[in-house]
Amino acid sequence: MRLHTICGRNAAAVEKARVKFGWERASTDWRAVVADPEIDIVDICTPNDSHAEISIEAARNGKAVLCEKVLALDVSQAAAMVAAVNKARVVNMVCHNYRRIPAIALAKRMIEDGTLGDRIYHYRARYAQDWITNPDFPLVWRLQSKVAGSGTLGDIGAHIIDLGRYLVGEIKEVCGLLETFIRERPLAQSQGSGLSVVGSKGGKKMGRVTVDDAVSFVGRFKNGALANLEATRFAHGRKNHITLEINGSKGSLAFNFEYINRLEYYNSEDPADRRGFRSIIVNDGSHPYAGAWWPNGHIIGYEHTFTNTFADFVKAVAAGKSVQPTFEDGLQNQKVLAAIGESARTRQWIKVE
Amino acid sequence: MRLHTICGRNAAAVEKARVKFGWERASTDWRAVVADPEIDIVDICTPNDSHAEISIEAARNGKAVLCEKVLALDVSQAAAMVAAVNKARVVNMVCHNYRRIPAIALAKRMIEDGTLGDRIYHYRARYAQDWITNPDFPLVWRLQSKVAGSGTLGDIGAHIIDLGRYLVGEIKEVCGLLETFIRERPLAQSQGSGLSVVGSKGGKKMGRVTVDDAVSFVGRFKNGALANLEATRFAHGRKNHITLEINGSKGSLAFNFEYINRLEYYNSEDPADRRGFRSIIVNDGSHPYAGAWWPNGHIIGYEHTFTNTFADFVKAVAAGKSVQPTFEDGLQNQKVLAAIGESARTRQWIKVE
Amino acid sequence: MRLHTICGRNAAAVEKARVKFGWERASTDWRAVVADPEIDIVDICTPNDSHAEISIEAARNGKAVLCEKVLALDVSQAAAMVAAVNKARVVNMVCHNYRRIPAIALAKRMIEDGTLGDRIYHYRARYAQDWITNPDFPLVWRLQSKVAGSGTLGDIGAHIIDLGRYLVGEIKEVCGLLETFIRERPLAQSQGSGLSVVGSKGGKKMGRVTVDDAVSFVGRFKNGALANLEATRFAHGRKNHITLEINGSKGSLAFNFEYINRLEYYNSEDPADRRGFRSIIVNDGSHPYAGAWWPNGHIIGYEHTFTNTFADFVKAVAAGKSVQPTFEDGLQNQKVLAAIGESARTRQWIKVE
Amino acid sequence: MRLHTICGRNAAAVEKARVKFGWERASTDWRAVVADPEIDIVDICTPNDSHAEISIEAARNGKAVLCEKVLALDVSQAAAMVAAVNKARVVNMVCHNYRRIPAIALAKRMIEDGTLGDRIYHYRARYAQDWITNPDFPLVWRLQSKVAGSGTLGDIGAHIIDLGRYLVGEIKEVCGLLETFIRERPLAQSQGSGLSVVGSKGGKKMGRVTVDDAVSFVGRFKNGALANLEATRFAHGRKNHITLEINGSKGSLAFNFEYINRLEYYNSEDPADRRGFRSIIVNDGSHPYAGAWWPNGHIIGYEHTFTNTFADFVKAVAAGKSVQPTFEDGLQNQKVLAAIGESARTRQWIKVE
Repeated sequence: MRLHTICGRNAAAVEKARVKFGWERASTDWRAVVADPEIDIVDICTPNDSHAEISIEAARNGKAVLCEKVLALDVSQAAAMVAAVNKARVVNMVCHNYRRIPAIALAKRMIEDGTLGDRIYHYRARYAQDWITNPDFPLVWRLQSKVAGSGTLGDIGAHIIDLGRYLVGEIKEVCGLLETFIRERPLAQSQGSGLSVVGSKGGKKMGRVTVDDAVSFVGRFKNGALANLEATRFAHGRKNHITLEINGSKGSLAFNFEYINRLEYYNSEDPADRRGFRSIIVNDGSHPYAGAWWPNGHIIGYEHTFTNTFADFVKAVAAGKSVQPTFEDGLQNQKVLAAIGESARTRQWIKVE
Repeated sequence: MRLHTICGRNAAAVEKARVKFGWERASTDWRAVVADPEIDIVDICTPNDSHAEISIEAARNGKAVLCEKVLALDVSQAAAMVAAVNKARVVNMVCHNYRRIPAIALAKRMIEDGTLGDRIYHYRARYAQDWITNPDFPLVWRLQSKVAGSGTLGDIGAHIIDLGRYLVGEIKEVCGLLETFIRERPLAQSQGSGLSVVGSKGGKKMGRVTVDDAVSFVGRFKNGALANLEATRFAHGRKNHITLEINGSKGSLAFNFEYINRLEYYNSEDPADRRGFRSIIVNDGSHPYAGAWWPNGHIIGYEHTFTNTFADFVKAVAAGKSVQPTFEDGLQNQKVLAAIGESARTRQWIKVE
Repeated sequence: MRLHTICGRNAAAVEKARVKFGWERASTDWRAVVADPEIDIVDICTPNDSHAEISIEAARNGKAVLCEKVLALDVSQAAAMVAAVNKARVVNMVCHNYRRIPAIALAKRMIEDGTLGDRIYHYRARYAQDWITNPDFPLVWRLQSKVAGSGTLGDIGAHIIDLGRYLVGEIKEVCGLLETFIRERPLAQSQGSGLSVVGSKGGKKMGRVTVDDAVSFVGRFKNGALANLEATRFAHGRKNHITLEINGSKGSLAFNFEYINRLEYYNSEDPADRRGFRSIIVNDGSHPYAGAWWPNGHIIGYEHTFTNTFADFVKAVAAGKSVQPTFEDGLQNQKVLAAIGESARTRQWIKVE
Repeated sequence: MRLHTICGRNAAAVEKARVKFGWERASTDWRAVVADPEIDIVDICTPNDSHAEISIEAARNGKAVLCEKVLALDVSQAAAMVAAVNKARVVNMVCHNYRRIPAIALAKRMIEDGTLGDRIYHYRARYAQDWITNPDFPLVWRLQSKVAGSGTLGDIGAHIIDLGRYLVGEIKEVCGLLETFIRERPLAQSQGSGLSVVGSKGGKKMGRVTVDDAVSFVGRFKNGALANLEATRFAHGRKNHITLEINGSKGSLAFNFEYINRLEYYNSEDPADRRGFRSIIVNDGSHPYAGAWWPNGHIIGYEHTFTNTFADFVKAVAAGKSVQPTFEDGLQNQKVLAAIGESARTRQWIKVE
C-alpha cells in the first residue's frame, strides 16, 4: 500500500502535511486526485458539505470510497451517494470508527451470540462534551448549519445513533428536541462573509449560531427496544463522554468511552451471590482487534479506532468485499437524524423512513 | 415523643409489629386512630389508593400528616388532599425521602449558592431496577393500576421527578413514552378477585399487567433547562440505581444512589490542568445531616434518608412550621406524572398544568 | 432483651446518654455493674487501658463479655483476659466489627468454599485516614501510648490484621516499621497532668506524641501467602479507607470500605473474553446478613457492622455457644501487633509467637 | 531523522521486521551497527543480559544510547555503563517510559510546584500482573535469572522504584522479601541447553524457576517519606495494574495505569464541604505532552509513553543536552534493586549505597 496523494485547499498547508505524514504527492485539485488512475482508494475527511460531491465523483471513477461521518448534509444527498457507489459497484464505507472500539466489537459479538438474551429492552446512550460552554467560544464551522448541516445532532449524536443501529437494530420512530443554549457567538477574525452579523458584544462582531447545542430524544427500535439518547456540548467536565447501556432479557452491557478499554457486563445467570457488573479489560488475545495491539492491560486509545477501521476497509478493498458500515448505513443514519430534526421542529413523533 | 399507635389491616400482624418496633398500642381501625386526641402526627405508609382518604380525614382531625409518595392516584385526589391540609392548617409532608440524602442536600446547597452558575442546561436522571425482569415474577399490587396508579412512573419515576423539581425547578412540558414489556404475569396464590384472569401458562393463572414497566421522556424546565428522565424495572444488574447529572454554566454535579455517600462535582473554574470531577464523601462535619451520623468516611445508607426526613418533620411539627416537600409538592409531582401519562397516550408534548 | 444499665465516669453525661438511648439505669460504678446479678452481658467500650480489668472482673462474675478492640494494651494483659474468660467459661467476643460487613462475610464464604482456589498468594491491606494531618490537631488520648497502647498500629492496623487472620489464616512472621511524622502536638485545654509538656508553640503548650502515625510491614502467613499491610492517619483524602485485595490460585477479591456494599470478584475460570472483576452489590437475599436489611441496592453503612456483630453475639449468649472473634482471636491479634512493634524497634524479622 | 538499521539475531525475522516497520537496512551484526558512522542513535531493546556490552560499545563509538530498563544485570555492570557513557560524553537514557505518561508528568509538576505541600509522607506503589499464574506457563527467559537478572523485581518492580525516585526522591533504606510461588515450570520445546532439567510432569520436562514471582518491601526515602512497594505476577485479574498513591502535607495524588489518562488529586485546601479526589483527565492542552495528541477526553494508551520518551530523547540528542532518566538513574535504580535482593536474602534492612 502506498500513501499516494494528500489533497487540501491550501497548497502550503498540504505540502507541510505531506512531508509530516509521508505522502508521495500533495494536491489542491480534488477532481484530479479522484480521477488519478494510480489511485485505488479515496478517503474523504472534508467538512460535511463536500462529502457528497467528492464521494460521487470518486465512485464514478471507480475508486473505493471511505467517507467521514456524517455521510451528507441531508437524506437526499446521502441517497444520491448510495446510488453512486452502488451503480459504480465500489467498496464504500462511512467512517463510524467507534464500531471498531474493541469493547464495542465485543458488545456486538455478545449481543449476536445471545449473551444478552432474546430481547433487548433498553438502549440508552449519551454523548457529552463541554468544549463550547464558554459563550466567548467563536462561531466555528461546526456551529453553522450551512457547512455542518447540524450541530451535536450530526456531529456526535450521529455516533450514538450508529452504535444503536449496529448493536440493537433499526430505529422505528423518534420524538425529541433540539436546543441552542447560546444563540450568538463572536465571529473569528477571518469570518464574516456568508455569515449574517447580528450585532456586537464587547467590541466583537457577533454571528448567529444556526445549529443545535444539544439533542435529546426517546424512540423505539423495530424489535421493541426503547431508545433514550442525548448529545450535548454543554456538560462541564465531560470531555468525550460516550456512555451506553444496553439491557437485555439475560443481562446488560455498559460502556464509557473515557474508559475505552473496558466493557461492563452483567450476567443474570451468574450464581445469585456472585452477580455483578464485570469490568472486562478488552485487551485480551481473545478480544476483537486485540491481536494487533499490546499485551493485556496495556491500553489503547482513540486513534486505534481509526486504525482498526482503516485496516478492515483496506482488507475489504483488497478482497473486493463489502465492509460495514456502508454508505447505506450512512444513509440510514441520516434518516434517523432527519426524523429527529423533524420531530424537534414539529413537536411530533416521527417514523423513520 | 411517643410511638403511640401502629395501625394495619391484619390484627395479628399489627400486634407482632407493635411488639417488634416498640409501639404502645396496635389498631386495625385507622379512622379511630386518626381521630384519637392523644395523637399529633399521622404517618401514612399504605398502598397508594388509600393515601387520599386517610390524609384528608387526619387533616380534618387536625393532625400533622406525613404521607408516603406518590401522594395520590391522580391529580384530583392530590388536589383534594392539598385543599384538606391547607384548610386544616396542619403541617404536611410527602415522603420524598431522597431529598434528604446528604449528597442531594449538598447538591441543593451548591445550586442555590450559585456554585453551578446562573444557568442550568441539563437535568438528566435515571432510576433503574431489575426486580421484575423474570417473566415468572407474580402480579403483585405494584403491577396493578387500580392499586398502584401507575408502575415505574409513579413508583420510581416520581422520585427523580421530585429531585428535578427540588434541584432545578418546575417542569414546563414533557414528551415521552410508557412501555409494558411483560404484559401477562402469574397470579399469586391468594390473588384473583378483582383481577381479570387472562389465561394460563404452565398451569398458572395469568393476569394482565396494567401498569408501565418503563417510562422514558424528555422535557423542558421553566428556567430553560432540558430534562431527560428514564425509569425502568428491566435493567439487569441495576438494583436501586438512581443516577443524576446536572450541568450548569459553571460546573456539573453527578450522583449515583448505589454510592450514596458521594457527590461528584466538577468546577470549571479550577485551574486548567487540575480540573476533574471531585468525588466528595458527604460525611464531613460541614455537610448536611452529617452531624447526626458517623465520622467522615464511615458511610450511611438507605434508612438514614428516612431518619433525616422524619427528624426534620418532627422538628417542624414541634415548631408549627412548614417543611418541604409539602403536599403541594406532592400535587405538583402528580401533575408531572399526569402530563407524562397523557403524553404517552396521545403521543403529544404536554404542558404541565 | 433489656438495656439494663449504662455506665460511665461522668454522672451527668451518663444520665443524659441513658435517656437518649433508652437504658433503664445509669451508673458510674463499673464494679457494681459487672457484679449486678440482673445483668447477663457486659459490653466494654472504654479506652484500651481499662479493657483488661473490666473484662476479667466481668468474667469472674460470670458475665458474657463483649470487648472493644484492641483487646488489651499488650500480650500479657490479653493472655490474662483469655485465661479469665476461659476459666469462667463465659461467652466472649472481641468487637472486630468489620468481620460482619456483609461483603467481608461473603469473601469469607468464597474463600472457604474454594472459590479462590487452593492457594492464597497475596493478602494486601491498607487502612488510611487523614484526621490528624493538621499539626495543630491536639494530643488526644489516641495519641498517648499510656492510654492507647499504640497509634495506628492498634487502632486501625489491628482491623486489617484481624481481617487477614479471618480471611487468610495465621500470620507467621512480620517485618516492618512504625513512624511518627508529627512528634509534638498542642495539649488540649484540659490536658497536662501526666503528660510531659515539651515546650510551647504559638503560645500553646506542646506535648510529646508517644504513638505511631503510620505502620507499614510485610509478612508471611503460615500457609505461604504473603502479607503487605499499611495503616496511616496521614493520607489526605482517605477518610475511612480500608482497601483489601486477596489473590488466590483461581481468582481474586477486592474490597474498599468507602464502597462498603460492594465486593469485587475476579474469576479466572470465566470464559477468556468475559473475564473481569465483578462488582457484586452485597445486598441480595443470598448474601450474608442481607435478610436483616433493605432490598437489594438500598445500601447499608457503618453501624450495621455493629448491629450484625451484636446480633450474632446475643444469639450466641442465648444459645450458650462460642462466637468468633473470641478473646483468643484478640490475643492472637495482639501477638501480631507485638511482633510488628518489636520488628520496628529491632529492625528485624520477628516470628509471631 | 532516518530509520537506518534494525538489528537482531535471526536474519529472516529481522528482514521481516525491517519491511514491516520501514527501516532502511537489516543486520544481524550489532557490532557493525554500533560502529556504523552513519548512525547517531542506538536504541537497545534486547534482553537484559546484553544491555551492558552493547551500550558500552555504542558509547565507545560515540553514539547516543537509549537502553531498555533494567539497565543491567547488576550494579557493577550498570556502573560500567555509566562510566562508559560519561567518558564518551554521549547522550544517554534508560527507557523508563512510564515517566512520560502524561498523568505521571503532571504528578511530577504538581509535586515540584509544592501542590502536595513541603513534606511527602507516603509513597505507595503496586505493580500487579497475572500472566504466569498458570503453573503450565513455560519457563520463558524472563523466568531465568541468568538472562533476566531477576523476576518481578527487575521487570516491573524497577518501574515503580523509578517512579518513586522520580516523584519523591532517593530511597535511603529498604527491607523486604522475594517469593517464588511456582518453583518448577515446563520447558518450552526449544529450551533445554543451559537450563537444568529438574524433572518431568505429565510428560513435560520441567525446569527450575530461578527468579522471583513477587517482591514486597517497605522502605524510607532520604526526605523522610515512607515507601511501600509490591510487584507480583500472581494477582488474578490485574493485567498491567500499576497503582500509585502519594500523600503529602497538603494533598494526595493517586494513579492507576489501567486508567492511564487519569490522575486523582485531593486538595486539602479546598472548601471543607467540597473536598474530594478529583479525577483529572490528563488530555487537556494545559497538560504535559497533550499538545502532541488528541482532543481532551480522546484517550491515549501504552505506546504513547514510548513516543513521548523517544521524542524527548531525540530532541535532546539534537540539542546535545542531557535528558532524564539517564544511565545514572538506571544505576541508582539498580542499587535499589540490589538492596532489596540483599534484604530478601539476609532478612535485614539494607541501606541503598
